[in-house]
Amino acid sequence: MLTRDELRAARERAAAVLTESGIVLTPLERANIEVADFGLSRLDDIGLQIVVYVNTDRVCAKELVLFPRQTCPEHRHPPLGESPGKEETFRCRSGVVYLYVEGEPTANPACRPPASGGDAFTVWHEIELRPGGQHTIAPNTLHWFQAGDDGAVVSEFSTTSMDEIDVFTDTRIGRATVVREE
Amino acid sequence: MLTRDELRAARERAAAVLTESGIVLTPLERANIEVADFGLSRLDDIGLQIVVYVNTDRVCAKELVLFPRQTCPEHRHPPLGESPGKEETFRCRSGVVYLYVEGEPTANPACRPPASGGDAFTVWHEIELRPGGQHTIAPNTLHWFQAGDDGAVVSEFSTTSMDEIDVFTDTRIGRATVVREE
Repeated sequence: MLTRDELRAARERAAAVLTESGIVLTPLERANIEVADFGLSRLDDIGLQIVVYVNTDRVCAKELVLFPRQTCPEHRHPPLGESPGKEETFRCRSGVVYLYVEGEPTANPACRPPASGGDAFTVWHEIELRPGGQHTIAPNTLHWFQAGDDGAVVSEFSTTSMDEIDVFTDTRIGRATVVREE
Repeated sequence: MLTRDELRAARERAAAVLTESGIVLTPLERANIEVADFGLSRLDDIGLQIVVYVNTDRVCAKELVLFPRQTCPEHRHPPLGESPGKEETFRCRSGVVYLYVEGEPTANPACRPPASGGDAFTVWHEIELRPGGQHTIAPNTLHWFQAGDDGAVVSEFSTTSMDEIDVFTDTRIGRATVVREE
């Protein structure tokens, strides 16, 4: 749950980061930046700012903004109907992002789970993405990511995005952001 | 057909444009920028520079660089098998691009066909895209585009790209770039 002030502040901060990265948004896009706190009300630790450019029944493209050390919690994109699940490619545009995927755990990972994360971070194969670096995540596989100390901007190219069916390891999570009226 | 020098010069110029736009490429991506002259050997007039970030059997993302007044000639992406054809979204990142699609012809379009273009430009519904502007093109519909006087950088988000099956209005066109050894 976010207050209106928290939502507004996160939007303005994300818009400033995107401008700094040379990414131009329309006024409407700036005003509608999605701020996800995953229902945990700890946005600085666990959260994500999102601009959805396009999301048709075939293709989706987004810009993701992560504030310093902000974490997108572990989840997977399950199959639905004839789709094997969402396939997504992350490409780092600025800053550094550490992506964790299924596979051999990295011995000394660069990130720790956020304090409020509990034991809901189970995959530890680390992929470090700096500007120009990218990685494609197979459908229905677990992943999570955290920005470095200066935050990050990450482009996401994917099949259709259906956030509402994502499966999070932390069962307390609700993907839809709830804004609390003050 | 391009000479090795033309290919190298176009790659370096496109890489410089992308850097100027704040887009970071890896050294390998810079070295492999695709330069398409559509077999017409008039790159300044009819051509396109392309960085393919990802092209799986579901999703494709590219960066397109157009030099000033350079034109991507009219074409469509036909159905193949169970696919209705490639769906693509163009998002302008820098400069201006004029996109022409099927529909009511625009009375005073901002572009003329390139001198060498013959009568192979048949759709004239104009969509002007400036930074932050975008448009989605339905599968199997005709389109072409030309940059303004300062060139343009355009992100393309699409389903799988299969350039070799594209259907060009100008039947002289061959999509694969041939490099002439000097």
